[in-house]
Amino acid sequence: MIVCTTSDISNEIIKKVIEETGCKVVQKKIQMLKSSEKYETKYLLTYGNFDDEVNAEELEQLPNLKWIHVLSSGTEQLPQSVIKDRDILVTSSKGIHAIPISEYVLGAILHFAKRITEFRKLQDQMSWSYTQEMFEVYGKTLGILGTGSIGSDIAEKAKVFGMNVIGVNRSGRRPAEFDQVYKIDQLKEMVPLCDYICCILPSTKETIHLIGQEIISLMKDQVIFINVGRGDLVIEEDLLKALKAGKIGGAALDVFKEEPLKTGHPFWSMENVLVTPHASARTKMYMNRAINLFLDNYKCYQKRQLDNMVNKVTFN
Amino acid sequence: MIVCTTSDISNEIIKKVIEETGCKVVQKKIQMLKSSEKYETKYLLTYGNFDDEVNAEELEQLPNLKWIHVLSSGTEQLPQSVIKDRDILVTSSKGIHAIPISEYVLGAILHFAKRITEFRKLQDQMSWSYTQEMFEVYGKTLGILGTGSIGSDIAEKAKVFGMNVIGVNRSGRRPAEFDQVYKIDQLKEMVPLCDYICCILPSTKETIHLIGQEIISLMKDQVIFINVGRGDLVIEEDLLKALKAGKIGGAALDVFKEEPLKTGHPFWSMENVLVTPHASARTKMYMNRAINLFLDNYKCYQKRQLDNMVNKVTFN
Repeated sequence: MIVCTTSDISNEIIKKVIEETGCKVVQKKIQMLKSSEKYETKYLLTYGNFDDEVNAEELEQLPNLKWIHVLSSGTEQLPQSVIKDRDILVTSSKGIHAIPISEYVLGAILHFAKRITEFRKLQDQMSWSYTQEMFEVYGKTLGILGTGSIGSDIAEKAKVFGMNVIGVNRSGRRPAEFDQVYKIDQLKEMVPLCDYICCILPSTKETIHLIGQEIISLMKDQVIFINVGRGDLVIEEDLLKALKAGKIGGAALDVFKEEPLKTGHPFWSMENVLVTPHASARTKMYMNRAINLFLDNYKCYQKRQLDNMVNKVTFN
Repeated sequence: MIVCTTSDISNEIIKKVIEETGCKVVQKKIQMLKSSEKYETKYLLTYGNFDDEVNAEELEQLPNLKWIHVLSSGTEQLPQSVIKDRDILVTSSKGIHAIPISEYVLGAILHFAKRITEFRKLQDQMSWSYTQEMFEVYGKTLGILGTGSIGSDIAEKAKVFGMNVIGVNRSGRRPAEFDQVYKIDQLKEMVPLCDYICCILPSTKETIHLIGQEIISLMKDQVIFINVGRGDLVIEEDLLKALKAGKIGGAALDVFKEEPLKTGHPFWSMENVLVTPHASARTKMYMNRAINLFLDNYKCYQKRQLDNMVNKVTFN
């Protein structure tokens, strides 16, 4: 039996999962399952984070759980020690985020470059004014923290706008879409070059709180900052200070240390911050792609071709 | 002597013009020139339209005028019969608009696809909500009316987003950046295919009022409409009706029948309309590019190599 812990999966898609796997599918939170359902659960479909988090206690209640397919890209919020102890297979939905997130990032870059917030304000005042000029992204430098499938897709799109695209990753290896790539320990050299900085790193021991006062102070004045990675890459208090001081000119934030972002948090009411509710990847196409990935993996799993399964996650 | 009728040209650029041409440069409206200056004027730098319009009477006051370099792309507002009668040379700044305008158009497409206005509203309410989804432009169809340098640049950028790009022009000839091109008399066949429609046609007898009730009725429901060509391509009353009825889902309008757009005009206060004050091309880089074009032409003019001058305009 397959259990999905999120209501985001439509009936239509559930039907498709039933047809293609021949399994019974139950769409409930783990704590809502009947005892018999808990016993029968072999496969789990879950985001595994934030308001769809799955904790160690819940997993203990599923004695026959074999495989968790995570509908997100990141898996850092899963209860890793239980999973390792019980040798539960984990796969993620990594790779399906590139299209929507790269669209969001280019949209955010152009939003700030074309000064949409400021022009919208003039519009509200019915003011036809030539004093305010749009900027060009042509010739500007975009720094991307993370050079995987999403970063490379953003880079490819930015290149066609004539941007100079530089990246940061662990190895310093340069994917073809980037003009230059720095190792993560060279971040201090890379950051001062950027007019736009986009963060798409996963949350790991090495990346947590990577962007704080020290790195921010090295950024160009009026830099535009975009975070579509994880909220905890950034020390939010430092980002807030830099945005208030105008050191950072604008930010598009789709991820936060704590989600949902609390009512009353200063980010909400800042004019130079665009807050979106972890929405950059969540288009109509998202769940189709995530489930297709699961179904392809399921076929391999049934044939015991575990080596052919994609996005297997290993915890250290 | 060179006269510039616009104050948009900075002192720095004026200095460069003086250095490279050896001419005296006066920056004034024609009616503000002294008699002696009027007599000395050989070259005119002007937008030649809207609030920098140059009329026949003014040209009559410049008996020695030889050449008008227009800082805009379109020249349709110049007093054509005087120019023809006196055989005044006219060149335009066509071709320098592709970079900023294509950035504006992609920005507008992504603005509507990522539903920035709606998400900004949620932000104002401090509401973290998953009910609202962003759209993808991937796989969607963009129709571009006009396939010249600007249209081709828009098409090239849209292609890297995985959009299907179709165009309309007079001949039906297909530039490489387009998936398909229709002749202008096939507009009715092309329009129903588009999720996004972008207008960059010049204003001519053939294009005036091209987009009215009849063509709009053939568009997909909720189509996004972008006009960066000329305001009079569109019957504004019909566009307004379609926007109010939701037939057209959203519009980014940078050009209008009458500019400046009047205070109180309904476009200003429509939530699904983004009004910008003919600003899409007007970046810091614009005047540099326009003046470099003039200076290159000036060198040819001095050497009497009129055939090598670019963007010469012939009025029929």
